[in-house]
Amino acid sequence: MTTPAISRFPVPEIKDLPDDIREKILAVQEKSGFVPNVFLTLAHRPDEFRAFFAYHDALMDKPGPITKAEREMIVVATSNANQCQYCVVAHGAILRIRAKNAHIADQIAINYRKADITPRQRAMLDFGMKVSAAAYEVGDADMAALKQHGFSEDDIWDIAAISAFFGMSNRLANVTNMRPNDEFYALGR
Amino acid sequence: MTTPAISRFPVPEIKDLPDDIREKILAVQEKSGFVPNVFLTLAHRPDEFRAFFAYHDALMDKPGPITKAEREMIVVATSNANQCQYCVVAHGAILRIRAKNAHIADQIAINYRKADITPRQRAMLDFGMKVSAAAYEVGDADMAALKQHGFSEDDIWDIAAISAFFGMSNRLANVTNMRPNDEFYALGR
Amino acid sequence: MTTPAISRFPVPEIKDLPDDIREKILAVQEKSGFVPNVFLTLAHRPDEFRAFFAYHDALMDKPGPITKAEREMIVVATSNANQCQYCVVAHGAILRIRAKNAHIADQIAINYRKADITPRQRAMLDFGMKVSAAAYEVGDADMAALKQHGFSEDDIWDIAAISAFFGMSNRLANVTNMRPNDEFYALGR
Amino acid sequence: MTTPAISRFPVPEIKDLPDDIREKILAVQEKSGFVPNVFLTLAHRPDEFRAFFAYHDALMDKPGPITKAEREMIVVATSNANQCQYCVVAHGAILRIRAKNAHIADQIAINYRKADITPRQRAMLDFGMKVSAAAYEVGDADMAALKQHGFSEDDIWDIAAISAFFGMSNRLANVTNMRPNDEFYALGR
Amino acid sequence: MTTPAISRFPVPEIKDLPDDIREKILAVQEKSGFVPNVFLTLAHRPDEFRAFFAYHDALMDKPGPITKAEREMIVVATSNANQCQYCVVAHGAILRIRAKNAHIADQIAINYRKADITPRQRAMLDFGMKVSAAAYEVGDADMAALKQHGFSEDDIWDIAAISAFFGMSNRLANVTNMRPNDEFYALGR
Amino acid sequence: MTTPAISRFPVPEIKDLPDDIREKILAVQEKSGFVPNVFLTLAHRPDEFRAFFAYHDALMDKPGPITKAEREMIVVATSNANQCQYCVVAHGAILRIRAKNAHIADQIAINYRKADITPRQRAMLDFGMKVSAAAYEVGDADMAALKQHGFSEDDIWDIAAISAFFGMSNRLANVTNMRPNDEFYALGR
Repeated sequence: MTTPAISRFPVPEIKDLPDDIREKILAVQEKSGFVPNVFLTLAHRPDEFRAFFAYHDALMDKPGPITKAEREMIVVATSNANQCQYCVVAHGAILRIRAKNAHIADQIAINYRKADITPRQRAMLDFGMKVSAAAYEVGDADMAALKQHGFSEDDIWDIAAISAFFGMSNRLANVTNMRPNDEFYALGR
Repeated sequence: MTTPAISRFPVPEIKDLPDDIREKILAVQEKSGFVPNVFLTLAHRPDEFRAFFAYHDALMDKPGPITKAEREMIVVATSNANQCQYCVVAHGAILRIRAKNAHIADQIAINYRKADITPRQRAMLDFGMKVSAAAYEVGDADMAALKQHGFSEDDIWDIAAISAFFGMSNRLANVTNMRPNDEFYALGR
Repeated sequence: MTTPAISRFPVPEIKDLPDDIREKILAVQEKSGFVPNVFLTLAHRPDEFRAFFAYHDALMDKPGPITKAEREMIVVATSNANQCQYCVVAHGAILRIRAKNAHIADQIAINYRKADITPRQRAMLDFGMKVSAAAYEVGDADMAALKQHGFSEDDIWDIAAISAFFGMSNRLANVTNMRPNDEFYALGR
Repeated sequence: MTTPAISRFPVPEIKDLPDDIREKILAVQEKSGFVPNVFLTLAHRPDEFRAFFAYHDALMDKPGPITKAEREMIVVATSNANQCQYCVVAHGAILRIRAKNAHIADQIAINYRKADITPRQRAMLDFGMKVSAAAYEVGDADMAALKQHGFSEDDIWDIAAISAFFGMSNRLANVTNMRPNDEFYALGR
Repeated sequence: MTTPAISRFPVPEIKDLPDDIREKILAVQEKSGFVPNVFLTLAHRPDEFRAFFAYHDALMDKPGPITKAEREMIVVATSNANQCQYCVVAHGAILRIRAKNAHIADQIAINYRKADITPRQRAMLDFGMKVSAAAYEVGDADMAALKQHGFSEDDIWDIAAISAFFGMSNRLANVTNMRPNDEFYALGR
Repeated sequence: MTTPAISRFPVPEIKDLPDDIREKILAVQEKSGFVPNVFLTLAHRPDEFRAFFAYHDALMDKPGPITKAEREMIVVATSNANQCQYCVVAHGAILRIRAKNAHIADQIAINYRKADITPRQRAMLDFGMKVSAAAYEVGDADMAALKQHGFSEDDIWDIAAISAFFGMSNRLANVTNMRPNDEFYALGR
């Protein structure tokens, strides 16, 4: 029996990668116990790998009023709308862990309007989904609605940027046939 | 702390139900260890309950070349397209159990085109999704494509009827705010 | 000249059907003067036939504040959105008869927003169409809007269930190529 | 009881109209037995009235391999897709009369793919519907497909122009709330 | 090197045209310095040519509270939504000239919600775009919104008619492969 | 008269920026004669700025069989589909310059199917547009179609990554109300 490919494009050996990329991957492996396939898939293109993860970390590892779990909520909701298997499975796992909630990721992926979330989180996801599907219609009324829920201008930028960045990631994962690691499915359940 | 409602409509007590409905529910409870919320939600309307489950059982408990696991695949794929939380969570669990595969339900829900399925199953899901989204465009070419994969006319009816029936179920679940039982999330993982 | 097929699937002879189904069909024939093709098409699957008509009758023959004519309005509006020839032609006829109005069915099928209906009926159809097209977006605001027009919770269930049931019926009719009987076209005009 | 308005805009008295418009309307009235409301609605704007009917007559009264009944088929199919009550009701009547077929208009309006038409008529309507919904995607392959059914370049222009012209007419009728005359509903049935 | 065709259909020689059409074309040529290709493309069908330009002139050369530049704004916004190369390029040029603004046409074509326009112009374009995309949903609330911005009933007719007429024109241009003249691209920049 | 804002978010003074960002901006200014507003808008978030332009440069400044002009074609086509004013205006200018063609950017933005491009470029844009609109449907047949036009696997990655990256950029520009610099409109015409 063969192992299914993790990408339709060539996947480099970790040992052959540039030092900075290899080190980043080994650090993730040490922390998580496995190497998420997005690292191996994107390592095919070192410069894009570096930019991708620099962008990712700037948006997702940021402290602030929008918690890390809430950031993952945006990823999970928009990624299911974009039908991205890798992102829903992998970030669903991260969301379950960060929210310490075994059900929230599936709820949000399938229909965030029916999920066990606060009205503030609902407003956040409404906006993230609008940025994903119809950013060209975003206007002052959207800003006002978010501010009523206590979001600052910088929070709004964060929501939009996370939705936009993972819209890119969703498209890359779908084109590359990026395969979620088996480990993600059960994490945090 | 209150238990979240399982329906936005009144939910009857099991003891107050007509005998046949109470017995069906108790039988399910004995077999599954819990009462799936779809039984309690629909019990608000006994006649519709009876018709719904008679229809469901006629389509889903049927032996034949389309296996029970494959029937659940159709349910899971179309229910995520219809953003039905109850159906994806509950039938995802049944699919994992019937297929003895912990990953297949999430794969199919999110993007069945990237799931670990056979070309025959892919053709089955392509058709089920077309019935769900654009049945008015179904024509002879669809029949021919399915027959090339070995599906008989009766198999094609089955696929179409399952897609159509759960399209109804998805709409009912979304309008009633039908809540998936906690038990479903981890089943079969 | 051959008679056009009424279904792309096999159509049983009435005499070969199980007793209960044959009797139901003969009763309809006696009352209507002809056998609507939905009975013959679905008789190919006796168990599904029984469940289908049990469900149908539970929803459509029910007394209550939503009249039988209004129930048919929901069928006609959603069935044209689903491009279902059988359902628009057959239920259009029933609507004309029940509403004693020769024009209302065509008006509602083509654009219910321009039909000669009351604001309460307009709200009913707005909701039925939303259940048909985007049930996943249904929420508390929809309930509130309907209650303002005097609809009870049970009425709301009825509207949703009729829309959902005929969504299934529309898909079955489109896949089976179910042909409207010639008799329906002129009824009630 | 008041007569429903035939337009949301002012409707002139026939006697107050410019001579050429009044004469055209009276000629139609003499021939048809009534004045179709499109004449009265558009008479609010004499110059647009003249251009509209000159265009209409150039496209619809033209002899050629596409019969007058077939031209009406294009109108009926695209007008239902555009949810135009006036055009489906009025041109449905004309189609029934021209095709000497009491059922064809309803069949085509609801789902032309299931109508009793020839493969050549099906190709004609596929193209007319594409022009209506996505003319920006029309390309050489569409031309080739039509030529295989025997349509000449000039026939293709006709189909496209009829679809485009009635797309305009559908929008005007929907904005003006143009009301179909009662006479149309039963004509040709 | 060959000159690209201006239409996929035959284009007549100016000298062979009926007198009235030839004279109209020569007058445009004298005024503009070139013959816009829409004149040559439509001259293939003299009767349709006459009706088209009579309609066009009735809508676009009309004095009134909606300026000629504003009328072109409606054309440019809806024509980009319909992906009509000829209409965006040609009417973009006319808009730049009429508005004496080198940037406004590109802004409106790409995303009119972000263009340097007044709230009244925004309301006008919102309505024109709705007529183009979903005229069947136009209702009393649209009328009221426009009246709040000072538009009269006749102004509303104008906006709708311009949107509808150019919807026809966009479809004709896309089917005929109507090519914008090179002269239009730089005009008014 | 006030200068219109270039972003709805705060825009830093160049002198206050981190050294690397200030130097990058001044280098662009020296080369182009002005500072494109995307640099100033994104400088509000230095880490995101660095990642964005590292990613951008990795994709757009890359030598290879897909020329720099062709890369801009992908940007222009997808950005108009996403209704992004900044990206169509700015990258339209770059495309005109790189392709030494004053008309190509407008043609591609409005309807790339009608643009003066080669069949290979048409296949490239068909794929870039599919990645933008429906990446979840991308499969082996897309790869095969591109390879028939001579594109390598790495070329296919490039097309997909450019479409995906600018999908992100389009969303950021629409949410921030990023304003195209006046200088872009006339460049290369």
